[in-house]
Amino acid sequence: MARLSEFALIQRLHRKFGRTGPAVVRGIGEDTAIIRPLGDKSLLLTTDLLAEGIHFDLATATFEDVGYKAAVANLSDIAAMGGTPQHLLVSVAIPPSQSPEDIEQLYDGMMEACRPYKVDLVGGDTSASRNGLFLSVTLTGVVDAGRALTRDGARPGDLMYVTGTLGDALAGLSLLSGRATMRRVVGRQLPSLLRRHLISRHLRPTPRIQEGQLLTQHRLATAGIDLSDGLSGDLLHLCERSGVGAEMDPDALPLSAACRAYATVSHRDPVHLALTGGEDYELLFTVAPKHKAQLERITQRHKLQISHIGVIRPKRFGLTLRGKDGVPRKLRVSSYEHFRSKRTQAQGVRWSR
Amino acid sequence: MARLSEFALIQRLHRKFGRTGPAVVRGIGEDTAIIRPLGDKSLLLTTDLLAEGIHFDLATATFEDVGYKAAVANLSDIAAMGGTPQHLLVSVAIPPSQSPEDIEQLYDGMMEACRPYKVDLVGGDTSASRNGLFLSVTLTGVVDAGRALTRDGARPGDLMYVTGTLGDALAGLSLLSGRATMRRVVGRQLPSLLRRHLISRHLRPTPRIQEGQLLTQHRLATAGIDLSDGLSGDLLHLCERSGVGAEMDPDALPLSAACRAYATVSHRDPVHLALTGGEDYELLFTVAPKHKAQLERITQRHKLQISHIGVIRPKRFGLTLRGKDGVPRKLRVSSYEHFRSKRTQAQGVRWSR
Repeated sequence: MARLSEFALIQRLHRKFGRTGPAVVRGIGEDTAIIRPLGDKSLLLTTDLLAEGIHFDLATATFEDVGYKAAVANLSDIAAMGGTPQHLLVSVAIPPSQSPEDIEQLYDGMMEACRPYKVDLVGGDTSASRNGLFLSVTLTGVVDAGRALTRDGARPGDLMYVTGTLGDALAGLSLLSGRATMRRVVGRQLPSLLRRHLISRHLRPTPRIQEGQLLTQHRLATAGIDLSDGLSGDLLHLCERSGVGAEMDPDALPLSAACRAYATVSHRDPVHLALTGGEDYELLFTVAPKHKAQLERITQRHKLQISHIGVIRPKRFGLTLRGKDGVPRKLRVSSYEHFRSKRTQAQGVRWSR
Repeated sequence: MARLSEFALIQRLHRKFGRTGPAVVRGIGEDTAIIRPLGDKSLLLTTDLLAEGIHFDLATATFEDVGYKAAVANLSDIAAMGGTPQHLLVSVAIPPSQSPEDIEQLYDGMMEACRPYKVDLVGGDTSASRNGLFLSVTLTGVVDAGRALTRDGARPGDLMYVTGTLGDALAGLSLLSGRATMRRVVGRQLPSLLRRHLISRHLRPTPRIQEGQLLTQHRLATAGIDLSDGLSGDLLHLCERSGVGAEMDPDALPLSAACRAYATVSHRDPVHLALTGGEDYELLFTVAPKHKAQLERITQRHKLQISHIGVIRPKRFGLTLRGKDGVPRKLRVSSYEHFRSKRTQAQGVRWSR
């Protein structure tokens, strides 16, 4: 970073990414961004801190990948509440080993993820770092007042749904950074189209903004959460906050053809991938039975994939998986936590909240 | 950190600091905070990233000091716009060497600085760090729509004012972490009351929230900025953004008795301390001459200290200091930048935006 002072870097990023749209009175250039009044919307605020060697490894991910996924993690938090993302603040602590071009690529990746949602970069901070790259992303959003989807509204009898397919991101991560021999064997046996699909689902996940918005717009869901820790872990969060249990049908978990093929060639259980794989950034949400028909009509009309994967039970049932014999068995929760050893964490671009 | 998982730490901080007031629909516990609608207010957003060994040194500052000052840096950004601070998001990356108690003290310091302004902690993130402590603080605020004080409104003829006194924080920093022999000599000659005052101004500065609010409320100022980089550097920012020059009267710079005494015993020029000392977190603002009387009436009524230190000139005048002979001389700008060598930076709790 010796080549470029902080002010020069801020100015460069400002020119390239800074926007003042109708909603942004002042953005980058002041220490504080000014955002126009919101009418009858509630404000949403979410933030993620990402540390090199903990959340990402620059040996297997590009700066653009890291930036892209940092933005998606935050966009997905807004999606989980059914909100519309709006303004981004990005702070980055930069070690001497990284060039201005590296940092620009990081921002390129972030803004690429934000572009479909017209999210503006309105501020941030830069600093030197003596050891490793740190990235802190704060995202604002809005939602109609009183309509935000939270984790605490699920009630016994509610139906559980997820968007998209599960386990792809974990399969993609394994293809990038599993044991070398395994990677070679699996890579040879898996058609390259499927391989690329899984890696892309790991490096470039899609935040389910539209899905979340439809749920709040039509008041369809009672609770929601995004799948960053993996289905079993995030279901646990939702059930704990709602004070309920749940029964899941493993046969109903949505698996992509690519994930099934990967499971076959790698001798892994696809249901296990779906339950434990983090960072799919799909939404898990619960719906009162009376809204089932309306939900399915609306998602069909918008060509959105959702799957009915189970039902909310009273708390005393705990978290269960329905067996082949129809009998529920206890679900083993394998949630993803930050404070792990380096070896299990610093693989590919992998993190969660 | 091995003793405490991320979830446990979040829960502990949640219990201790998390608030859901009338404006916070959901705070800590969701990934995303929900804030009630703001009426006809504009939203303000500011963020700071602080890195150990760059912005602070845990050898000379406690965790509480670091937290306190991190909060003040953000509160001061909201003050500079004349806003009311509201909600805090705090992310922290924690190296293995630090205990949960250390991190709790960091939060204690932050919340102590926020308490007078009823600022709620509504969210954040925690992560492990392989090297050094990193702290990212994001603060929201509100201001009446269209009234925020910005840096770009100063016009030739406007009067320049600062709040409080200047140079105290730099004097306090030097007392804590200057050369040891100098520290001993100066410390012996300076009454302990004055010494404590200067150190407290360095470690526990006051954000000028009330002053900023009065300026926007009564539409008194044309531009404003907080003094984090030092008067000469921050005046340069303001003049560049406004496209103007300035003429300052060095005899009008407000100096505390403690700062004058420090300057005498350390053989330093007090005006130089006032011009270059960063982190006083006073406000510099400009006022049209027609509002002079009203400004002075209002600040007297509220017992607030302000000093008229010069006048805005057309851009071609540049930045000047009036000499004893009445002739303006070019002001040497010594601004504080992040990307310096470790030696000049990692002293006390010292940073700026």
